[in-house]
Order: sequence, then structure tokens, then C-alpha cells
Amino acid sequence: MKLFGGIEAGGTKFICGISDGENLVQRVRIPTTTTPKKTMAKVLDYFKKIHQKTPLSALGICSFGPLDTNPVSPYYGFITTTPKQGWEYFNIVGSIKEVFDLPIGFDTDVDGAVIGEYRWGNGRGCDAVVYWTVGTGIGAGGMLGGRLMRGLIHPETGHIFTPHDKEKDPFEGVCPYHGNCLEGLASGPALQKRCGVKSIMDLPPDDPVWDLEVEYLGYAMVNCIMTMLPQRIILGGGVMQREELLPRIREKTLQNLNGYIRHKNIVNNIDQYIVPAYLRGNQGLFGAFALAENAERERNW
Amino acid sequence: MKLFGGIEAGGTKFICGISDGENLVQRVRIPTTTTPKKTMAKVLDYFKKIHQKTPLSALGICSFGPLDTNPVSPYYGFITTTPKQGWEYFNIVGSIKEVFDLPIGFDTDVDGAVIGEYRWGNGRGCDAVVYWTVGTGIGAGGMLGGRLMRGLIHPETGHIFTPHDKEKDPFEGVCPYHGNCLEGLASGPALQKRCGVKSIMDLPPDDPVWDLEVEYLGYAMVNCIMTMLPQRIILGGGVMQREELLPRIREKTLQNLNGYIRHKNIVNNIDQYIVPAYLRGNQGLFGAFALAENAERERNW
Repeated sequence: MKLFGGIEAGGTKFICGISDGENLVQRVRIPTTTTPKKTMAKVLDYFKKIHQKTPLSALGICSFGPLDTNPVSPYYGFITTTPKQGWEYFNIVGSIKEVFDLPIGFDTDVDGAVIGEYRWGNGRGCDAVVYWTVGTGIGAGGMLGGRLMRGLIHPETGHIFTPHDKEKDPFEGVCPYHGNCLEGLASGPALQKRCGVKSIMDLPPDDPVWDLEVEYLGYAMVNCIMTMLPQRIILGGGVMQREELLPRIREKTLQNLNGYIRHKNIVNNIDQYIVPAYLRGNQGLFGAFALAENAERERNW
Repeated sequence: MKLFGGIEAGGTKFICGISDGENLVQRVRIPTTTTPKKTMAKVLDYFKKIHQKTPLSALGICSFGPLDTNPVSPYYGFITTTPKQGWEYFNIVGSIKEVFDLPIGFDTDVDGAVIGEYRWGNGRGCDAVVYWTVGTGIGAGGMLGGRLMRGLIHPETGHIFTPHDKEKDPFEGVCPYHGNCLEGLASGPALQKRCGVKSIMDLPPDDPVWDLEVEYLGYAMVNCIMTMLPQRIILGGGVMQREELLPRIREKTLQNLNGYIRHKNIVNNIDQYIVPAYLRGNQGLFGAFALAENAERERNW
């Protein structure tokens, strides 16, 4: 039996786990600190202990971004211009390679999630699917024509600009690069700062901030449909754990489209068009397993 | 020698022409009226006269949209929910098939343009390229991984939502579906209505409306980069004939990105990253020729 290690590197936590190629064998949660080396030491300790007993075949890592995923770039394997304190230009793949001489798969957290959901979750059967995370950051991974969407860069949908009515919402946004881009206005930290709370779970369901959140994500859905052309949109991430949001985002999306796109998959089946993640909380980890398997296959060529 | 007919169907004019498979042999311009049948009668007359002398091998048509390009749909070949008066749900491919028993290629004007520029113009060597038209309407055709971007729908980038500062620009927008979507704010008709002019060529270069135009298109470029991932963006269409816009849009795009994306192709080479169409005015027609050739090859399978 082969074992694969997977790491979902997030802005608040690292989820690490082991797969036998189909099923999750075990997982742990390691908090993300502002010192990448300390965080990675704990991550690597976890895998070292397992590897000593039963050697791993490969490791896969899905990370928050932006990343350099170009294999011929000198910065391949780096987290690049992230606003996450301490992590800018951290060589995350390099830090694993120092310890493990194994094939290592590497991609964004959201590409991992879209791969995981495509293979084992709510993306099955859709070769055009976009997975959004709305949490500490906002981002998306996309598949189009059965292939990961990848051009000059990988998708960076959190940093699109959407309408911002400053009269209704005078909040300036939290993105250190753009202020009021989508992530600046609608990420978890934006909600927390706007409302002065430590967790979005502290906000009552009728807080007016949710109207704004639905408004921004409703714009995001339309922009995604018009540019990334998904057959299905999967919404994940910490903010989406507020489950009352999903039906409202669906409704707002239809309102915004206003009959311009009349495809029956959207108009008649919005509940099947914008859906939650199936692998709830483990989509990135499963994506990391898939990346590990890919990396092992490539090494074996 | 084989001859191919091409039609670029636009909101204000139809460009029809003949190609020998590599070069443009001839072209004509036919105004678009609010009566599709009358417009198409003139278009078909043009090709009938040529076909009687030298039979055409195939026809290609690139049309303003939205279109149904799904070959198994009952509405295949239709212009669907267009705001263009008289053309809603017009079966444009059917109107050609009534007269010509030939292979017919069919796609959006902007997909035609991206194909034309990819094969003969400024998209050569880029397998991730987006062509934007900014004219009577706003739209884009995209290629990613060397394939046309096509998922549930084709790209409809004119109808994305971008920031609209109503204090600076109280104009409500002209899109009958969305009001102030990108097309509603930044298309040729939006500029004309906002300024009360019949042609954007009547506006002086220092009219403040150009600041707004640069602002909206600067947002559009960023949203395009973040979602459609082009290695190059080609800007065409009637509004872009105001050549002073292009350098300003490049500058605004860099300002908006604000260092978040640091890829050298963008940061160091913006003049080679956002470029005008090479086939100036004929990109859709050349795309139609490419579609005609494709259609003939498919028929010959």
C-alpha cells in the first residue's frame, strides 16, 4: 500500500494528513504563525514520524498565495507577494525538500480544492468548475475544458474590483495592495474589522453587514460566470460556514444577471449551480493528495 | 484554389469578405439595420454573386452576441438575448443555410477576433490571450492553453460589474439588462449618451469623460488578468480607435495592480502586454475565414 502526505497551507491553519490513495487515513491541524520556519518545523515533524514507520511515496502541498508555480522560475515553490505577515517570499517547497527527498506536488489552496472537489466531491462530472474560498482571503481555483485554468498566472479572483457604494458602506477595505478589492471588502478580516468583532461567528444573522457580504459575493458570482464560464460554482472557506449566506448569494446572482444569461443550468437550477463544498473542510487536503499522486506519477515517467 | 467566405456581424456594420486560405481577396461593408432579414439579404446577395462565378468552399460567421454556439441546442446559430433592437433570437446561421448548402463556421465576433489575431496577428506565440472589443458593445474572446475559452457559456466580459463612483460619474449606464455594468458605462453608446454627441470622434482628447473611460477599462484589465490569465491582452473595437486611450489604460492597469502581480511580462513590458489589434478592423473577418476553414475540415471528416 502506498501512502501520500498532503498539506493544506492556510492563512490561519495548516491541515496535514495521510491518504492511502483513496481514503483519508489521518489528519492534524497546526496553527499558522507569523514565523514560517516554526510552523513548518511542526508540519515536518508530523510527516517525519509517519515516514519513519511507513515511508511516504510523495507529498502534495496546496498553499495560500500568490505562489510561483512555474517549474522553471527561480522562485518556483515560493509564496510570493502575500499580505500574510512573515510569509512574503517564503520558499515553502524548498523547506520541505530540505527534509524529504520525495516527489512534491505544489499548487494553490484553491486549485487543490477544485481538484479535490472535481475528483471526489461536488465538481464530479463538470469539466468547467470554479471553487471559491471566502475566508481569511478570497480566491478561486478553476478548471476549464477539464484542465486547471492556468495562463500567465493562476486565478487571483480575490483581487478583482467590484462595485463599492461608499455611501452604503464607507469601510475602506483591508487589502494592503488594493484597499477595497473584493478581498478587501468581503473576506473574513474585512467583516471582522468593519464590525469590530474577533470572529464572524459572533455576528448575529440579521446584522446588516451580511447584506453587504451578499452584495459583494453576488457581484463576484456574476463576474466569475462571465469570465471563467463555470458549469458549476463551489463556495467554500470560513465565511461560507455561515450557511444562511448561500441561498442569499444564489438569489442575488440571479437578480444581478437579470435575465441576460438564460442558461437553464443557472436560471432553473441555481441550487445545483452554486453549491457548497462536498468535502467540507478537507477539499484542500484531498487536493494535496491528488497533487502528491501526480508528482509521484511524473517522477516515475 | 479554394475560396472561403467570411462575415463579421457587428452591431453597426457587417464586414463580408473572401479569402483564398491565406490572404484577403476582397471585402465589403454593409450597414446593420434593425431588420435582420434586410441586412442578411444584402449579405447573402454579395456571396451569391461570387459563388456563381467561383464556388465557395465554406462560410464562416463571427457575430455580436450573446449567441448559442452549442451544436446540439435547438437555438444553435441564434443571436439570443441581445439588446440590439430587432435582433433578439434571430437565427443567423439558419438564414445563411436557407441559401447556401455549405459548411458554416459560427462563433462570437470576439472569438473570431482572438482566433484571427492568434493565427495572423498580435496573438501569435501566446496560447493564453484575450481579445477585447470596446465599441458598440464590450466583449472578449479568450484562448487559454491554446484552446478557446468555453464553458457553460462563452465569455461575456462586457457584463461584469466594476466599481462605479456615482459622485464622480452620476451617469446611470446604458445596458438594458444591468444599467451600469462595464458595457453600460464604457461602451461607445455610453460615451455618446453621457456626452450628448453622435460620435465619440466628436469628443476632444481632453474631455473629462476619457478619464472615466480609462478608469473603467483599467478595472476591466485587472479583472481580466485575475480571472482569464492572459499572456497578452489585445484591445480592439471602435472606442479603441481613440489611440490616446491605450497608453493611459496600460498605466492605469499597473496602478490598479499596485505591485500585487509582479510578473515581468506585465510590470516590465506593459507595452507588449496590452496591445492593439494587428489586423486593425479585419480581425473578426480573418477569424471568420479561420472558422470557415475549420467548418470545411469538419465536413470532410
